[in-house]
Amino acid sequence: MNIVLFRDCQVRVMEETVTNAEKYFGQFCLLLAAYTRKTARLRDKADKLVKQLIDFANTENLEMRTTLRNFAEDLAKVQDYRQAEVERLEFKVVNPLKLYGTQIKQTQAEIKKFKHVRNHEIKQLEKLEKLRQKSPSDRQMISQAETCVQRASVDAGRTTHQLEETVNAFQKQKLKDLQKILSDFVTIEMVFHAKAVEVYSSAFQTLERYDLERDLEDFRAKMHGVHRPYGPRDARPLTDTGPAAAAPWSLAQSAQSTMRSQRKEAESEDSSAEDPVEDLRGQGQGLHH
Amino acid sequence: MNIVLFRDCQVRVMEETVTNAEKYFGQFCLLLAAYTRKTARLRDKADKLVKQLIDFANTENLEMRTTLRNFAEDLAKVQDYRQAEVERLEFKVVNPLKLYGTQIKQTQAEIKKFKHVRNHEIKQLEKLEKLRQKSPSDRQMISQAETCVQRASVDAGRTTHQLEETVNAFQKQKLKDLQKILSDFVTIEMVFHAKAVEVYSSAFQTLERYDLERDLEDFRAKMHGVHRPYGPRDARPLTDTGPAAAAPWSLAQSAQSTMRSQRKEAESEDSSAEDPVEDLRGQGQGLHH
Repeated sequence: MNIVLFRDCQVRVMEETVTNAEKYFGQFCLLLAAYTRKTARLRDKADKLVKQLIDFANTENLEMRTTLRNFAEDLAKVQDYRQAEVERLEFKVVNPLKLYGTQIKQTQAEIKKFKHVRNHEIKQLEKLEKLRQKSPSDRQMISQAETCVQRASVDAGRTTHQLEETVNAFQKQKLKDLQKILSDFVTIEMVFHAKAVEVYSSAFQTLERYDLERDLEDFRAKMHGVHRPYGPRDARPLTDTGPAAAAPWSLAQSAQSTMRSQRKEAESEDSSAEDPVEDLRGQGQGLHH
Repeated sequence: MNIVLFRDCQVRVMEETVTNAEKYFGQFCLLLAAYTRKTARLRDKADKLVKQLIDFANTENLEMRTTLRNFAEDLAKVQDYRQAEVERLEFKVVNPLKLYGTQIKQTQAEIKKFKHVRNHEIKQLEKLEKLRQKSPSDRQMISQAETCVQRASVDAGRTTHQLEETVNAFQKQKLKDLQKILSDFVTIEMVFHAKAVEVYSSAFQTLERYDLERDLEDFRAKMHGVHRPYGPRDARPLTDTGPAAAAPWSLAQSAQSTMRSQRKEAESEDSSAEDPVEDLRGQGQGLHH
């Protein structure tokens, strides 16, 4: 019976491995999907803030208007990178974890098959034992039962070997995939955070450049009925609109279309050959193809 | 009537300024509070992922166990920085915006007061006009009415002047505060993202160091009943636990207390004199005092 006990021990290790993978990979999938969803919610809130900042900018004088609109653009750019982060997390982290269920089911089916074969072996052994006790002199019957046991034992041995190979392959794939998925997660996050640092640095400079005194001058002039919408200072180049003297609503519209085209730019930049995720992972296939 | 019309124009500019501030600062406050809340939700999900990673690590062989636990620690560290981000956003961005309501209410009260005085002036002017049409010869009454108009006009002039000063001060404070709040927002975000890049770089290296072949060796040995829990490789120093051979549940416990102490460390580090938010903002007062 020792070989059967050993096989039982082996199968217990295999079953545990697959059961744990099923349990924890399922959890990882759920939690990383939730993490991705929360990231998308964060992007939504920031997008709304961008919209309000632009609306407010249009009620302000030139100095604060320019500052707020440049700031809002940078904030929108961070959300574009966050959007790329969300798409990559779904594609490279959540989806691979979702697909994992199939692999686990296959391995579980192999284990079930082995258990069936092992039960048959045990039954044959019990039959032989009973025969030996009840009719120890029936040589023919005992010999027949011994052949059955031998056959069942060979079957179980072969199935164990197959199972071992299956589970070894499963474990190897599991460990490799886990390392890959976590590396992709880290890379995606790292790229996003690095881009955010870059864009926020520019936003910080925008805010530092803001000239309060100039703005107050304009405000006082406006209060005393001196309007200077076409004044020389309004002709300063704005990076994000057409003519600076356009009506507020058209300023808002052109700012929004700029935001959209920027989102596209950020995305196409991310899917180019220089995609840092792809660089770091050393993979040929882009995310956005 | 020209002076009254001019004052009306002035007051319209002032009213618009305060009404817009009320509307948009209210929106900024709501949206930034929501942004902060969503950031906290993201931290919660990542904290749960950390817990599951540690639980799973305890079901794995030494190689993956070590990798996963180091990785989980880094992920927990990022959440500590995210927690600091949440606290700072509340303290330096959301709270100042909340307190803004009071300032707006005060300025609105000043405007109301002025409107009352202005209405009185208009009434006196109308009275004088009527008198001149009805009894143009009643010199005494007309002279009395003229004095009333003059007095009301002086009152209105003084109130307009006061109002102008109040609104000028309000506008100056508003622009200054907005610049400060947005700069604080950017700085808080920038510090968080920079820390995240740093910690994820370490996490990436942890994953790169993972040795799949060594792990599979261990797995095959375990499947064949060769347990090596006290083997020489298990004696490798682990940065985050006591003895490597401890039972899984105690490993999990010590990992969690490590996470807690790390969160404290990260917080106390952030509240130190070297706090980059404080450095950049050039302010003496720390956030966590």
